[in-house]
Amino acid sequence: MLQELIYAQGKKARRAARVLANLSSDKKNQVLLAIADSLETKQDRILAANEQDLASGREKGLSKALLDRLLLTEKRIKDMAGGLRALAALPDPVGEVTEMWTRPSGIQVGKVRVPLGVVGIIYEARPNVTADAAGLCLKTGNAILLRGGSEAFNSNQAIAAIIGEVCQEQGLPEGAVQLIETTDREAVNVMVRMDQYLDVLIPRGGAGLIRTVVENATVPVIQTGVGNCHIYVDAAADLTKAGPIVINAKCQRPGVCNAVETLLVHEEIAKAFLPGLAEELLAEGVELRGCEETCRIISRAVPARESDWETEYLDLILAIKVVKDYGEAVEHISAYGTKHSEAIITQDYSKARDFLQRVDAAAVYANASIRFTDGFEFGLGAEIGISTQKLHARGPMGLRELTTVKYIIYGDGQIRK
Amino acid sequence: MLQELIYAQGKKARRAARVLANLSSDKKNQVLLAIADSLETKQDRILAANEQDLASGREKGLSKALLDRLLLTEKRIKDMAGGLRALAALPDPVGEVTEMWTRPSGIQVGKVRVPLGVVGIIYEARPNVTADAAGLCLKTGNAILLRGGSEAFNSNQAIAAIIGEVCQEQGLPEGAVQLIETTDREAVNVMVRMDQYLDVLIPRGGAGLIRTVVENATVPVIQTGVGNCHIYVDAAADLTKAGPIVINAKCQRPGVCNAVETLLVHEEIAKAFLPGLAEELLAEGVELRGCEETCRIISRAVPARESDWETEYLDLILAIKVVKDYGEAVEHISAYGTKHSEAIITQDYSKARDFLQRVDAAAVYANASIRFTDGFEFGLGAEIGISTQKLHARGPMGLRELTTVKYIIYGDGQIRK
Repeated sequence: MLQELIYAQGKKARRAARVLANLSSDKKNQVLLAIADSLETKQDRILAANEQDLASGREKGLSKALLDRLLLTEKRIKDMAGGLRALAALPDPVGEVTEMWTRPSGIQVGKVRVPLGVVGIIYEARPNVTADAAGLCLKTGNAILLRGGSEAFNSNQAIAAIIGEVCQEQGLPEGAVQLIETTDREAVNVMVRMDQYLDVLIPRGGAGLIRTVVENATVPVIQTGVGNCHIYVDAAADLTKAGPIVINAKCQRPGVCNAVETLLVHEEIAKAFLPGLAEELLAEGVELRGCEETCRIISRAVPARESDWETEYLDLILAIKVVKDYGEAVEHISAYGTKHSEAIITQDYSKARDFLQRVDAAAVYANASIRFTDGFEFGLGAEIGISTQKLHARGPMGLRELTTVKYIIYGDGQIRK
Repeated sequence: MLQELIYAQGKKARRAARVLANLSSDKKNQVLLAIADSLETKQDRILAANEQDLASGREKGLSKALLDRLLLTEKRIKDMAGGLRALAALPDPVGEVTEMWTRPSGIQVGKVRVPLGVVGIIYEARPNVTADAAGLCLKTGNAILLRGGSEAFNSNQAIAAIIGEVCQEQGLPEGAVQLIETTDREAVNVMVRMDQYLDVLIPRGGAGLIRTVVENATVPVIQTGVGNCHIYVDAAADLTKAGPIVINAKCQRPGVCNAVETLLVHEEIAKAFLPGLAEELLAEGVELRGCEETCRIISRAVPARESDWETEYLDLILAIKVVKDYGEAVEHISAYGTKHSEAIITQDYSKARDFLQRVDAAAVYANASIRFTDGFEFGLGAEIGISTQKLHARGPMGLRELTTVKYIIYGDGQIRK
C-alpha cells in the first residue's frame, strides 16, 4: 500500500520530468519568482504549521539545537524566498553545449547539458531544504521527490503545498515537486530502491542516515557529509597567517562539516606558534586535546586519545598533534582524513605545490581557511550539498551538478565502416 | 576467509592507488609499452592457458558464440598489445586544470582532474578485457581490481600475471593491477560491498550481471549495457540516406548494444520506403516483425507482438512500426527505449532540432547511423564501456571518465567572513 502510493508519485515525477526538461529558462525563472512571492504572502500558513512541529518537538523533548534547526521565522522565510530569487538570476546550465567536434567520418559530435530527470532528496530537520532543493531542481529542469524528517512534517507539508499551488497556477505538470506525505520510516526503504523512477538520490543529514541509504539503495547516490578536516602548519608557515586561519576554521561555525577538527604543527615552530594560538582558542571557549608534545607546550591541553584523531567533533574542540616533518603530516591526513577539506599553511613553494597535488580530498588548500568549501564561497551561486564521493560530483555541488550530458550527433547520411 | 583474501587485495589496491596517482605521464606510458611488449613475447603462456579454458568450455558444452568470445589467437594478442600502445600515445587527462577563477575574497579556486582511486571491474567471457581495462586504469593513475568470468579463468590469470610481472619490473607498487583469483561466485558479493576500498564498480556483461551488481552494491556503480535503440524515418527523410543507415545500423554488427532494434516509419513514406528496404534486409538475412500496416506493405514480415517493441534482439531481427506522425514516434521511443542511442532521419530542420533536444538518451542522432556510439568513433581514443545511466558518465566512456576532479585553492591568508 505504502509502496503503491510512493510508486505512483514516482510515475508522476517521471512524466513531469519530460516536460520540465524542455521548459525555457524564462519560464523556469518565472516559476521560481512566483514561488518566492507566494512563500512570503502565505507565510502565516507556514508559521502555523511550524508551530505545530515545534510544539510536538518540545513535547518529545528535542534538544535546543534541534528545535532551533526546526524553527521558522519571518526572517527565515524571507531568506528562503531570497534564495529562490537569487536562483532565478543565475545562468541556466541546461542546453549548454560544452564541446562539439567533427570526426573524420564527417559526423559532428557534441555534448549538451540536460537535466538528470528525477532527483530524490532525503533530509532531516531543516524545513528550508524543502524550498531550497525544490528551487534548485526546478531551475535545472528536474522533477523532485522530497522525503523530509518527521520532526518537520507539518512545516514541510505547508511549504510543499504552497510550491505545488504555484506550479499548478503556472501550468507546470503535476508531479514536478512532490513530498512523500507520511512519517512512516518504511518510506525511505521504498524510495531508495525505486531506480525505475529516480535518477539520483541525495541524502542530506547525519552519518547514520547516509549509511542507511548507501547500504540499501539501488538508485545511484551522491554522498554528502562527513568532514574530519585538518590544517597543517608547516615549519615555513607565515605564522601571522596561520593563527587567524586556524581560529577561523575552528570557531567561525564549529558545527559544520568544513570546520577544522585536527591541527598538525611542525615541531620546529610548535613552541613559537602554539602558546599564543592556544590562548586565543581558549578565549573562544575551545577545548584543546593534544599529543604528548602539545601537552608539554600547552599546559591547559588535555591528552588526546587515538579516537580523537578519528573524530569529527562538530563542536568547539580541537585535536592538536606536533609532527616531525611534512611527510608525517601528509601520512596523518591520509590515515585519518575523510577526503573533505585539507589545508597546508606554508611559504615554501614546493611544499605548497606538492600538498595540492598529493593530498586526496574534495578541496585542498594552500594558505586559506577551509571554511571556504561552500558553493557560494566558491562562486557556484548555489549549493545542494557537498559531495564527499568521487563519482559525478566532488565538493560543493551547484546547478551544473544537477545536470548530466547527452551526446548529440549531426550527420548527413554517414554509416559506420 | 574469502572475504579476508579479497579485503587484503582491496587494501593493497588502496595503497597502490596513492602512488599511481602521482606518477608522471612518461612513467605510465613506459609501463603500458612494456606490458604490450611482454604480452607479445610471452604469448605462448597466454595461448596455453586459453587452450585450457577452451577445452573445459567445450566439455561444459558452451555455445559456439561463447567459445569464440573466449578464444585468443596470435592476432587477438597482437590487438591487445596494439590497444595498449595506442593508449600510451593518448594525452593524459590527470593533472588537467579544467577551470580556475579568482573570488572576491582573493582566493583562487580551480578544478583539477585526478584519478578516481581504485576501480573494480566485473566482466564476463572476453579475456582481452583484462589487458584493456588494466591499461585504461594505469593510464589514468587508478589501481584496478578485476573479477573475470569463470570460463576465462586461466586466460585472465595468465594475462594478469604477465602484467603483474611488468609492473614489478617497472617499480610500480604491489597491488596496482590485481585479479581476484577464485571462481567462487561469492567473490562478487564481497566485492560489490567493499566501498572502503573501491571508488567505483563497472560491471561489463549481460543484464543479469548488471542487475545483481546494482541490487547489492554499496560501491558506486556505473551501469553499462542494454540498448533497445530506434531509428525514426520521418516523412521528410531523404530516403537515399535512410536506407543505407537502417541497413548499417542493423547488419554491420547485430550483436552489439548500439544496433537498431525497432524501425519507426512515418505513414506518408511507408509505401515508398519499406518495400525496397525490406528486400535488402531480407537479402542480408534479417527477420522482419511488423505492425499491421507494415505487414500489409511487406508480405514477408511476420506480425510483431507487444514484446517485440521491448526486446533488445542482439540478432538479425528488426521490428518495424508505421507511425502516424513525428509525435507518435517520439512517444514510442520514450515508452520503449532504454536511453542508449536514438536517431531521426529527416531533412526537416525543425524536426531534427526538436528530436535532438527532446529525446532523452545517451546519444541522439540526426541523419547518421547509431552504430557510431563508441568511444573510438566519437574520437575519445579509448573506451571502457558505454554508460546507460546519468551520473558521472553517459554514453561512451573514455579516459576522462576514469577520473574525477578535486578543487584546489590558492590563498594568501584569507579567512571566511
